Amino acid sequence: MKKIVIIGGGTGNFVVLKGLKNYDVDLTAIVTMADNGGSTGILRDELGVLPPGDVRQCLVALSDSSRLMRSLMNYRFENGNLGGHSFGNLLLSALEKVTGSFEKAVEEAGRILFIKGKVLPVTTNQVNLKMILNNRKVLEGEVEIYLSKEIDKGYKSIYLEPFPKVNPRVIDEIMNADLVVISPGGLYTSIIPNLLVDGVSKAICRSQAKKVLIVNLMNRKGQTTGYKVSHSLNEILKFLESDVFDYILINNKKPPDELLKIYAEEGEFIENDLVHDERVVASDLLGPLGDQKIDFMKRSLIRHDSKKVAREIMKIVDNL
Amino acid sequence: MKKIVIIGGGTGNFVVLKGLKNYDVDLTAIVTMADNGGSTGILRDELGVLPPGDVRQCLVALSDSSRLMRSLMNYRFENGNLGGHSFGNLLLSALEKVTGSFEKAVEEAGRILFIKGKVLPVTTNQVNLKMILNNRKVLEGEVEIYLSKEIDKGYKSIYLEPFPKVNPRVIDEIMNADLVVISPGGLYTSIIPNLLVDGVSKAICRSQAKKVLIVNLMNRKGQTTGYKVSHSLNEILKFLESDVFDYILINNKKPPDELLKIYAEEGEFIENDLVHDERVVASDLLGPLGDQKIDFMKRSLIRHDSKKVAREIMKIVDNL
Repeated sequence: MKKIVIIGGGTGNFVVLKGLKNYDVDLTAIVTMADNGGSTGILRDELGVLPPGDVRQCLVALSDSSRLMRSLMNYRFENGNLGGHSFGNLLLSALEKVTGSFEKAVEEAGRILFIKGKVLPVTTNQVNLKMILNNRKVLEGEVEIYLSKEIDKGYKSIYLEPFPKVNPRVIDEIMNADLVVISPGGLYTSIIPNLLVDGVSKAICRSQAKKVLIVNLMNRKGQTTGYKVSHSLNEILKFLESDVFDYILINNKKPPDELLKIYAEEGEFIENDLVHDERVVASDLLGPLGDQKIDFMKRSLIRHDSKKVAREIMKIVDNL
Repeated sequence: MKKIVIIGGGTGNFVVLKGLKNYDVDLTAIVTMADNGGSTGILRDELGVLPPGDVRQCLVALSDSSRLMRSLMNYRFENGNLGGHSFGNLLLSALEKVTGSFEKAVEEAGRILFIKGKVLPVTTNQVNLKMILNNRKVLEGEVEIYLSKEIDKGYKSIYLEPFPKVNPRVIDEIMNADLVVISPGGLYTSIIPNLLVDGVSKAICRSQAKKVLIVNLMNRKGQTTGYKVSHSLNEILKFLESDVFDYILINNKKPPDELLKIYAEEGEFIENDLVHDERVVASDLLGPLGDQKIDFMKRSLIRHDSKKVAREIMKIVDNL
C-alpha cells in the first residue's frame, strides 16, 4: 500500500484527505500548529492547550464513523459562554488535559472517530507565527497575518516564536513516504508555517518520495495579489532547500463569471503561466457550488473538489 | 437474563449501576431530570438543553470503554469561560443540539461509551422542581431545595413545573422488570422527583417486579433530621400508591467515630428501627474511605460500596 503524506492546514488538508480516504492508500496528515483564531485561539489563551482546530478538520476528513459523529465534531455552540466553540475542539482540549499530551489526545480522538490514517501536529510546542513586513510592521499570530492586506508590498521575514522542535514522527513519515503532497491553503497561514519548523523542509527535499504541489484556485488581495501559478510555486520554494516538486497540480476550469465577481474583493483566479513546464498536471479541480452551504464566507465559495483532486493524485500514485 | 430497573439521581444510581454492571443482568437506569446546579444549570440556562449531569454519571457507571474515556467524561475544565463544565455534560448537550433530541443524545453517548444497559431520562420535558414549605416559603429548583435547612420543619408540597409527561419507555421498562430498585440519594432532589412524574408511581406499584429500597447511610440536617430507617421508608411511601417494597436494604456498619464527627454538621448515621420487619436486609454496605479522593465534599466521605450493594441485590435476583 502506497504511503502518502499530506502537509497543510485545516481546510486544505480536509479537502485532500476526504477524497483520498476512499482509496486503498496509507495516509498521514501533517498539520500546522500556528492557528490562534476563533474557538482555537480562546482555548489556547484560556486553557493553555495546543491549537485543536486544524487537527480537528483532518480527523473529521479521515473519520469512518457515522455522519452524526462527524457533525458532532464540527458542531459549534451558539449561545452563552460556550458560543463559538466547536465541540471537536473541546474534545481535543479535554483529551489533552486528561492524557497530559496533545499527541495522545489526537491519537485518542482518532480512535473515537475511527479514522483511517494518522494525523500528526508538525510540532507539539506552543508557537506563535510572526511576520515582519518591509515597512517594519510586525504581524503577530496567524489571524493578524491572515487578515493583513499589505503582505503583497513585501515582507522581511516570517517565523515561529519560540523556535519550535519538530515532532520527530513527522520526519519519519516524510522519509518513509511514497508521495508527499502540499495541500492548497493560505500560503502564509497554512502552508509555510509547516516549512518553518526545523527539519521539515530538509526531510521533504531528502525523502525519496515524489512531491506534489497543489496550487490554490485563487490568489488573495493584499497577500498574493496578481499571483499566477509560477508565483505560488516560487513563494513556496523560498522555504524549501531546492525545487523538489515532481508534479504541480493545477485547476484549469475557471469558475463562472458571477462567482468571480462576488469573489473579486477577496482575490482572482490563478492563471497558469507555467505552460512549458512538464511537471504541470492541469485539469478541472473545481468543487461544486453546493459547498456554499458549508461556509458563508466568500473565500469558501470557490474551493477544490475532493474527489477530483483525489483522482488526479491517484493517477500519480498508480504510476509510482 | 433478569431485568433490573434502577431509579434515582446521578450519584446514587452511579454506585448501584457500577456494581451491577459486572453481573449478567439487563440494566436500565431511570434518571431524574430536575437538576439545575453547576455545569448542568448553566447549560440549561444558556443553551436551553435538558439537564445532562445525572445522565452522564449513569452512562459512566455503565460504560465498558477505557478508563481514559471515563475520565474524559468526568473531566471538568478548570479555567476561563469553560471553567466548571464537565466534558461529558458538553458531549450530551452538543449531541442534543445535533440530533435534536435529548433521548437520541443519550443513546448516541451510550454507543460512544460502549455502555452495558440503558439510561432513560424519566421525562424529556424541561421541568423545575419546586417545594412549598409550611412557612409558605417557595423553594425553586433542585439546588435551592438541596441547600435548604428548613425542610425538616415541614413542607406543604413538592412538585415539578410545568407538569411533565413521563418518558413512555420508562413505563415499559418498569412494567417489564423483574426487579425495581430505588437507589440511595437525596430524598427531595434525587428520589422523589422521579416519583413526581405522572405514571411512574403507578407503574412501580402495578409492575410484577419485586421492589427494593436502598436506604441512605446518613440523614441530612435540616432536611431529614433525626431520620431512622422507618422515616426514610415512610417519606418515600408518601409518593407511592402503596407500600410496595419487598426488600429494604440497610447498611448496618457504623462508620468510624472520627468520620461521624467530621460529618456531624451534615447529618447523622441512619439507625435501623425496623427491627421486626422481615423485609429488612441488613449488612455492611459501607464504601471504602479511599473514596475521599473522588470528592472533597463532606457528604461524600461516607458512601455506599458499589460491590457490596451489588452483591446484596444479586442475592435477591438469584432467588427470583
